[in-house]
Amino acid sequence: MPLWPKLVNLYQEYACYNMSSPSSLSLRTHTCGELNVDHVGKWVTLCGWVQYLRQDLFVILRDFSGLTQILVPQEESASKVKADLCDLTVESVIMVTGTVRKRPAGQENKMPTGEIEVLAENVEVFNVSKKLPFEIKEFVKKSESLRMQYRYLDLRSSRMQKNLRLRSQLVMKMREFLCNEHGFVDVETPTLFKRTPGGAKEFVVPSREPGLFYSLPQSPQQFKQLLMVAGVDRYFQIARCYRDEGSKPDRQPEFTQVDIEMSFVDQEGIRTLVESMLQHSWPAEKGSIQVPFQTMTYEEAMRDYGVDKPDTRFNMKLTDISDIFSSTQVEFLRSALDQPEGSIQAILVPCGAVRRKPSHEVHSLLVFFLSLVLVRTDGTLKSPLKKLLSASVTDVLIKKTQAQPGDLLLIAAGTLHSRPLLGSLRLQCAELLESHGRPVRDPLAFHFLWVVDFPLFLPKEDEPQELESAHHPFTAPLPEDTALLFTEPHKVRGQHYDLVLNGCEIGGGSIRIHRASEQLYVLKNILKEDPSQLTHLLEALDFGAPPHGGIALGLDRLVSIIVGAASIRDVIAFPKSFRGHDLMSRAPDTVSDKDLTPYHIYVKWPTKQGGEEK
Amino acid sequence: MPLWPKLVNLYQEYACYNMSSPSSLSLRTHTCGELNVDHVGKWVTLCGWVQYLRQDLFVILRDFSGLTQILVPQEESASKVKADLCDLTVESVIMVTGTVRKRPAGQENKMPTGEIEVLAENVEVFNVSKKLPFEIKEFVKKSESLRMQYRYLDLRSSRMQKNLRLRSQLVMKMREFLCNEHGFVDVETPTLFKRTPGGAKEFVVPSREPGLFYSLPQSPQQFKQLLMVAGVDRYFQIARCYRDEGSKPDRQPEFTQVDIEMSFVDQEGIRTLVESMLQHSWPAEKGSIQVPFQTMTYEEAMRDYGVDKPDTRFNMKLTDISDIFSSTQVEFLRSALDQPEGSIQAILVPCGAVRRKPSHEVHSLLVFFLSLVLVRTDGTLKSPLKKLLSASVTDVLIKKTQAQPGDLLLIAAGTLHSRPLLGSLRLQCAELLESHGRPVRDPLAFHFLWVVDFPLFLPKEDEPQELESAHHPFTAPLPEDTALLFTEPHKVRGQHYDLVLNGCEIGGGSIRIHRASEQLYVLKNILKEDPSQLTHLLEALDFGAPPHGGIALGLDRLVSIIVGAASIRDVIAFPKSFRGHDLMSRAPDTVSDKDLTPYHIYVKWPTKQGGEEK
Repeated sequence: MPLWPKLVNLYQEYACYNMSSPSSLSLRTHTCGELNVDHVGKWVTLCGWVQYLRQDLFVILRDFSGLTQILVPQEESASKVKADLCDLTVESVIMVTGTVRKRPAGQENKMPTGEIEVLAENVEVFNVSKKLPFEIKEFVKKSESLRMQYRYLDLRSSRMQKNLRLRSQLVMKMREFLCNEHGFVDVETPTLFKRTPGGAKEFVVPSREPGLFYSLPQSPQQFKQLLMVAGVDRYFQIARCYRDEGSKPDRQPEFTQVDIEMSFVDQEGIRTLVESMLQHSWPAEKGSIQVPFQTMTYEEAMRDYGVDKPDTRFNMKLTDISDIFSSTQVEFLRSALDQPEGSIQAILVPCGAVRRKPSHEVHSLLVFFLSLVLVRTDGTLKSPLKKLLSASVTDVLIKKTQAQPGDLLLIAAGTLHSRPLLGSLRLQCAELLESHGRPVRDPLAFHFLWVVDFPLFLPKEDEPQELESAHHPFTAPLPEDTALLFTEPHKVRGQHYDLVLNGCEIGGGSIRIHRASEQLYVLKNILKEDPSQLTHLLEALDFGAPPHGGIALGLDRLVSIIVGAASIRDVIAFPKSFRGHDLMSRAPDTVSDKDLTPYHIYVKWPTKQGGEEK
Repeated sequence: MPLWPKLVNLYQEYACYNMSSPSSLSLRTHTCGELNVDHVGKWVTLCGWVQYLRQDLFVILRDFSGLTQILVPQEESASKVKADLCDLTVESVIMVTGTVRKRPAGQENKMPTGEIEVLAENVEVFNVSKKLPFEIKEFVKKSESLRMQYRYLDLRSSRMQKNLRLRSQLVMKMREFLCNEHGFVDVETPTLFKRTPGGAKEFVVPSREPGLFYSLPQSPQQFKQLLMVAGVDRYFQIARCYRDEGSKPDRQPEFTQVDIEMSFVDQEGIRTLVESMLQHSWPAEKGSIQVPFQTMTYEEAMRDYGVDKPDTRFNMKLTDISDIFSSTQVEFLRSALDQPEGSIQAILVPCGAVRRKPSHEVHSLLVFFLSLVLVRTDGTLKSPLKKLLSASVTDVLIKKTQAQPGDLLLIAAGTLHSRPLLGSLRLQCAELLESHGRPVRDPLAFHFLWVVDFPLFLPKEDEPQELESAHHPFTAPLPEDTALLFTEPHKVRGQHYDLVLNGCEIGGGSIRIHRASEQLYVLKNILKEDPSQLTHLLEALDFGAPPHGGIALGLDRLVSIIVGAASIRDVIAFPKSFRGHDLMSRAPDTVSDKDLTPYHIYVKWPTKQGGEEK
């Protein structure tokens, strides 16, 4: 195996040509993507994978940066080199040394290296590849599970290479912005932590002490606040977080958030910081983003979009048309309006009347309360409602909704609580229109939106007379609502802000409670929680806590939207499958009883009588 | 609670003065460490903690950057401000607005802000601190457990503030070097992984599928190699790693490594990269470091220092003096030399003969094989050996060891296997001398050293006829030793390199095996391991793996040496105690049976009959 002496020689010959490039300290002199006519005549060394072989004339060599055409020498004196090259299989790894030549006229192409080729004079074969389970080409449709099983091959695709590199660069720019320009301190916080009260989604990690477990936290929330109490002043971390949700679409058991906390700051300060950070780190090839971002209250978002994370790339807002029907006698409208918070809402779907199919699909969604009104090209209506509506009501309806001929009006009667259904109906209408070739959302647009003034508490789903935190118990109330904490806590709005991008929540944060008495009141009197689990945090607030606030951005989701990926799995090097499995290494896996012994646990097999034990 | 409207007003008045400083986007205009005579007359806002109160005249305000003296106004018209300030307790958090003044002559001090003070004109009290469990002053000796319980207070000390900030900046510079200058890609790898064969130190994480567990990996070793197979070319990650070692001094169950892997590189390339990276990122206040680092083979290190991580800041090397005694008849020397690998070694302790106490302590270490020789000021020897040695042997001994009057010679007879004992004796001598006021090691010096040419395999401790990997099974053999794999594997040296700083191993890495057949041979034929657990890696090597290698640096240890900390706990924000506990939040903690149910495990209490169950 006379590989290394040769490499070392070559290294000494070529290395260190360029200390500040991807070829520094490497066996190669250049990458496969960088040679052009300026290099003609140069003696170069390239390393890479055989993309394909063309007859016995060319080998196309690939690395992360691109492709270079290698010319197979045909002279008798180079028969060894020729034989080595022609014996290769696709995806074999080689090092080629030779001279850069201009391609013969007519053989150029538009690739960055399309005007040159390298005449091979020396070849080192590092590894001959076996036949792959699939071809590494964009157009080959692979099954998701095959891609995951051979993830290291899937990652060779130019799309995955780009995604990983864009993610790395985005994070680097965020770090530079936070660390170098704004004095943030990158602090690592523990992931072996204590279980949060009610932390049902936290993985447990048995310790060597019987019955004692660590927990993998869903976020560094407590630590970031404690760092503010510690006087760190400005903290950030690209933090690994854990959430055990079983199988949820496009969630990962471990994920990454850009975690930020500042002292002596208000909402405006955090929002401005995040806007500037995203603007600073935004990939140049994705255009620039405008700041400040649009801001909307939770109430406005629910009113106009029926959702707290509206996709503002398109209109089709909810319109309250209750007043048009204030004296209606149409039964289903009347009974809706007679309820508490009864309301009649309309969504105008532009050009939605043209095809029947989408309308039918939409119709099936909310069959009891929804009615369709098609505006004919002559301006008259076609609708089961039509005969129930007077001409004047029809006129007002058309006017208020600004419906045009060819539009579809969706009219829903119910209570305000059904607005989320209309919000999702709005999104489905957009999808339906797009699936029928009518563009609704610009796929290249990035619409950022702050949603603010959320309620601080919501009724518990199973016990609606009790309250739970809308986000988490550390969020401070709006100053003007603070007094309501003691009288009507359900009316208190919190200093929470969500960041929404194209209808996805990509971040959320708040100004925190910084006084122990207020925090204790919220925990004990409003949330009825046992504060003893948070003694350390309450104590910390008593020993000189500054006012502080922060935010966490979901990095996986943010990157996936930037690159236009269908799933966050496309921006994570080694994601888990839908069921939380690593299909490549087959994790999770069995562990022997012997290996579990130090942790004082054993497995309760559901099929055995163990299932009965408590 | 009329806090926030005021803050918002103040924010609008003062914020954004400086977008690129620690006061950007903040309620303050300046930090407590930056004001000087250039600011005299300026209207400023400071936020911070009350360091102390001096009569009713001054408040010393502190933030992460320093201290500023706040002058309490004494006029009647400012009685509210005066009352607010004088009612404060130490460590309360306030915001002060006022004018910067030059201190009266004679009241200046040498602090950066020692020539000015700020006359308070407005005060906002954010939080009044309760009496602390200890004072935040360097000179107060606190118990380790108290420091850990109130870690957020301990972190307010200037030492911990400096440590955390130096660590953050060091890592930032490493990132800039790797990412921006050398084309590395920051890739996050999973921490919920599959158990490594024999991974006895891996925490297990139960999944929701009965009997299936994730494992928290000790390093991203497999993933980094797979990323090279994936064509990522250059990978780095500041990686969180996990190791469950029970209680070991100064180890943490989770720790951080600077994890690096490159394709198409050799040992020299990796070593040059690491040297340049450390040089680039080295904190300016710690002086500069010289590259290239000294290199030593494993054999040389064992021969001269008796250890594979020698502290090269001082001499006192092991000297083989066997030849002097080749014809000795002194019984314990003779019997040592007659053994296989028998040897007589000397350590020269300069000036070690002056005090008897250290010699006694040293003596007790190796009482059977060790003899002491004191060189008197007149050049004669004092030793139990003396009467057994001829004059000529004595002369040669003095000459060979270059012993001077007043020196101590430690002479040990045994086999070469006892060299590690002498290595630790050498370190203890240095400590003893230093504890007696004789400086041996420069506390400000940083001596880097590469140790190379380690044996690839070592005899297993419990079954010495079998071999195990000296580091891990993926390390490639030295090219010139490859043929020995098939004949005398115990003689094969690996392409492994350790980085040693001041006698501590701070990193290690290797060039990896990149051919499946060689990897399989090592696993199956030499290590007798079941290769089926590594099918995914072996397969990956078969599908076009490039030659590759890398390194991992222990970040916690590196930073602790740079800042001169006694423990890595001093460079980690929230470390675990010796027993792996978080003394602040009290993790690990109990988890209810109900919370364990989804994970199909239960606790095997050692005191109950559960202990008998299998």
